[in-house]
Amino acid sequence: MGRPWILDYDGANCTIGAAVGIIGEKWTFLVLREVFNGVRRFDDMQRRTQAPRQILSDRLARLVDRGLLRKVPYQEQGQRGRHEYRLTEAGLDLYPVLVALMQWGDRYAVGPAGPQVLLTHRDCGERVRLELTCAAGHKLASAREVTPLPGPGARRTA
Amino acid sequence: MGRPWILDYDGANCTIGAAVGIIGEKWTFLVLREVFNGVRRFDDMQRRTQAPRQILSDRLARLVDRGLLRKVPYQEQGQRGRHEYRLTEAGLDLYPVLVALMQWGDRYAVGPAGPQVLLTHRDCGERVRLELTCAAGHKLASAREVTPLPGPGARRTA
Repeated sequence: MGRPWILDYDGANCTIGAAVGIIGEKWTFLVLREVFNGVRRFDDMQRRTQAPRQILSDRLARLVDRGLLRKVPYQEQGQRGRHEYRLTEAGLDLYPVLVALMQWGDRYAVGPAGPQVLLTHRDCGERVRLELTCAAGHKLASAREVTPLPGPGARRTA
Repeated sequence: MGRPWILDYDGANCTIGAAVGIIGEKWTFLVLREVFNGVRRFDDMQRRTQAPRQILSDRLARLVDRGLLRKVPYQEQGQRGRHEYRLTEAGLDLYPVLVALMQWGDRYAVGPAGPQVLLTHRDCGERVRLELTCAAGHKLASAREVTPLPGPGARRTA
């Protein structure tokens, strides 16, 4: 392999870096996992993630601030008003990140009992997975079949 | 929406949690990004990621320890022997996680100049993307079409 072209470019404008800056932190991932599993309330999230309350509160506030979750008020009879957390469209679009983590974890970080959650297609019941494809419809077997090229935001180093 | 079944289960055995425990940290993601871009040497990674050397060194050691990267010795004429970092098979299989982050970042965290990197299919040159599909061959438009079910490793809470 020759010298990768990316070495002539700086690391700014990288959207992996930008995405990781927003969600690349353990508790943030676990909060998102809960919301995608339909868990919307603080106490339920706290119990499931075992996150310290202050950390959970902070991560939820950040996700709301960054437009990935929104707060929706609810009130149960005889209790004070509270709010629950729901995914925005931008939050919902993070789903492939979670599925990719799960797919990898199911293979390389699974316990002897097997995975806790199976993802199935709502309409037909078959297992769901992520596939790497190209705009021409080819399926790619691995990263080896991908060629990264400089995009419009690539900035050469001096 | 009814009460999600996952509330009757604890958060152990979750392979998203396990995967995030291994790679769910900003610098680890940035190191993996570099390696997938073909950047294999410490100094190049340091320059591109701007990671403090001690942190970079620590994250690389962890990735080697966890079997995602391997160290390969090399020597340039007149210099002392060094090593570079290459992906193992388990590391290579993390690729969809990076692509998913990038795909999301390209949409929600991109600067005015556009993305820095474009992923293309080596064989045909078309743009590469991740698709959510099911084993029956259906394409899923979003997380809304996925039904999560308890897997073999799901453990009910007491």
